[in-house]
Amino acid sequence: MAVPSVNRDRLWQAHMDMARIGPTPEGGSCRLALSAEDGAARALLLDWFRPLGLAVEQDALGNIFARRAGTEDGKAVAFGSHLDTVPTGGKFDGVSGVLAGLEVMRALDEAGVRTRLPLELVNWTNEEGSRFRPAMMGSRVHAGNFPLADALETLDDDGVSVAEALRGIGITGGAAPGPRDWAAWLELHIEQGPMLEATNTDIGIVTGTMHARYFQLVIHGTPSHAGATPMERRHDSLAAAAEIVLADERIGRAAEPGGRSSTSWIENFPNARGNVSDVTNLHCDVRHADAAKAVIMEGELRAAIAEIAQRRGVRLEINPYATFGPIVFDARVCDVLRRKATERQFSVRDAMAAAGHDSVFVAPLCPSAMLFIPCAGGITHNPKESTTPEQVARGAQVLLDAVLELAS
Amino acid sequence: MAVPSVNRDRLWQAHMDMARIGPTPEGGSCRLALSAEDGAARALLLDWFRPLGLAVEQDALGNIFARRAGTEDGKAVAFGSHLDTVPTGGKFDGVSGVLAGLEVMRALDEAGVRTRLPLELVNWTNEEGSRFRPAMMGSRVHAGNFPLADALETLDDDGVSVAEALRGIGITGGAAPGPRDWAAWLELHIEQGPMLEATNTDIGIVTGTMHARYFQLVIHGTPSHAGATPMERRHDSLAAAAEIVLADERIGRAAEPGGRSSTSWIENFPNARGNVSDVTNLHCDVRHADAAKAVIMEGELRAAIAEIAQRRGVRLEINPYATFGPIVFDARVCDVLRRKATERQFSVRDAMAAAGHDSVFVAPLCPSAMLFIPCAGGITHNPKESTTPEQVARGAQVLLDAVLELAS
Repeated sequence: MAVPSVNRDRLWQAHMDMARIGPTPEGGSCRLALSAEDGAARALLLDWFRPLGLAVEQDALGNIFARRAGTEDGKAVAFGSHLDTVPTGGKFDGVSGVLAGLEVMRALDEAGVRTRLPLELVNWTNEEGSRFRPAMMGSRVHAGNFPLADALETLDDDGVSVAEALRGIGITGGAAPGPRDWAAWLELHIEQGPMLEATNTDIGIVTGTMHARYFQLVIHGTPSHAGATPMERRHDSLAAAAEIVLADERIGRAAEPGGRSSTSWIENFPNARGNVSDVTNLHCDVRHADAAKAVIMEGELRAAIAEIAQRRGVRLEINPYATFGPIVFDARVCDVLRRKATERQFSVRDAMAAAGHDSVFVAPLCPSAMLFIPCAGGITHNPKESTTPEQVARGAQVLLDAVLELAS
Repeated sequence: MAVPSVNRDRLWQAHMDMARIGPTPEGGSCRLALSAEDGAARALLLDWFRPLGLAVEQDALGNIFARRAGTEDGKAVAFGSHLDTVPTGGKFDGVSGVLAGLEVMRALDEAGVRTRLPLELVNWTNEEGSRFRPAMMGSRVHAGNFPLADALETLDDDGVSVAEALRGIGITGGAAPGPRDWAAWLELHIEQGPMLEATNTDIGIVTGTMHARYFQLVIHGTPSHAGATPMERRHDSLAAAAEIVLADERIGRAAEPGGRSSTSWIENFPNARGNVSDVTNLHCDVRHADAAKAVIMEGELRAAIAEIAQRRGVRLEINPYATFGPIVFDARVCDVLRRKATERQFSVRDAMAAAGHDSVFVAPLCPSAMLFIPCAGGITHNPKESTTPEQVARGAQVLLDAVLELAS
């Protein structure tokens, strides 16, 4: 039997077709989780599944599982990613993992190949966490890391719940999310970093992920008139927040290259011109490849925050609300990916994921690994996010080759 | 003829009645300009005018003028302030100036006194500028400092225009705002600072105001993934904004006691957890009693911003959008206020206004002055803002006595 090949142009065209849903003026995509655009993206994916004869299930959180029967009805080899994006999203983050999986299904169908084990292609709900936190919500709940009831009650900034948003795009019913009978899990993803491109590497074998710790801060100042209140009598929550943003940044800089940090979300009240701010909310995180060092970074952040709060006479609540990683991916599955890439004459190197991925939550459930493809300039979560038809086809081919071995 | 006295309890009750409109859980008031609450406050004021036989005019921006006829039909002696509040407003800022003016009208009516010159009590639209900027919009347009058409087109953060908001509370028509034939202007206001209370002073004679310079900043960064982007490759608009907030604060601290500054408003995009920020908008100001020094503060702020932008590789737009002051109030009107307070055995001292007031825009049009009454702890723009029935009655009595002299 000839090993089936992925169709580069068909795979690229699928990306371009998907990018037409939720287009942004700068050429990117905006499909926030469970928005109308996310609903349209899911509908297109289901349309594409139809001619392939896949058996589609959708759980109560909207995670989609499209199953291709094997010659035996055993454990499935699963793969996929997510179609939702951040507000300033591109065409490839998450999307490439789902569409490469679709291309695997299409190539096998075209070649008339039936694997021994069944295959399952997955689209996880709300990987990005831009609208509903925490990120990687679908895979978290699937893995039992976050309760379904809490997920359904989670509100976006407009007060809309996940349950309402699911109903809004016609997702009702479905079984409670939970582990499935999988022999292995694979996820293809753009690197979201500059290393593969800089080293002219086709395929990154992701051996593990950083450990990340997320915090929600609430800073309580004292509202007063910005014109009439002398500087030394102020307790300005926004100014305190500004110091925290910079403290978090300093801690991340000091932790490079293994660690980093960010403050990416702010809400300010009353946010009125001429009024010293009363309450400011921040989202901060710290990350490190070494979990112990991430915990030390958290300690540094807490110490900095306590000092700022005391000096400025503001009150601070620190609510840690999520962590992920570190994960060490399955060495045998990584080996399969590495070998398949090498057999295709693709250049390969090992990589460490710094971003969160659904694979982080799947990894404890079954042997799992990820492969990265290069992205231009390491730019992601940005309309300029890009890769090439060749790069994504090479990744999809390695995915297909590995699926065939793991499912044989 | 006996000099009429203000009625302390009636004046205090009017404050409590007004505070029932737009109450906040902490005991303050929220009546944003041209909101439903502002509309209800205006309706209550008009109800109170009715038994006094005042002739009420409302201009196209909703500024309210209630005229009491004199024995001659000459220039009017005018006084008043504003009923709108900031989101975290109290019961006295602006309100006391309008209600003390109402009490002047009531006391004269009760005593059967008719002044030689007519009197006009004014409620200015949108003094606070929390919802629609710039602040002091009504008096600015009245004084020809800001075009009516621009004011009507101004949008709030939800995209509602001033014109729509005016219609929303039933204000349609009215003459274009413009200077009126006034012999003098007086405004009673809470101090919004701690000096009168700290020196046990009843009445502050406001001899002038600081010069303030307002800026809207737009900071353009580069969106990227906060997990995957190494710290040194980021161009984070929120982190740049944090530095600017602290630079503005530093400049204000260095300028005390004559000057101060603040950053009171922020918008962040995409404001998505885990995403390095793309665009951040800030509102900053600098103020100084000496206008030349405020200009120097602006220069320092611009230099700091330029350095931050260059070092971080972000692009910055600085849009100065408003200034006010400095104003030196009319020495003769200040003398009348000082003399009237002294004749009543009230303690008096001169003061400088650091906040903006409508009087800043009226002052170039006719002889003008302000009087301050103490406010507890100097706290303002805060539900805890407070003064006492005696303090506001003393201020209203000085206002009444000065009006009688100026209108005789």
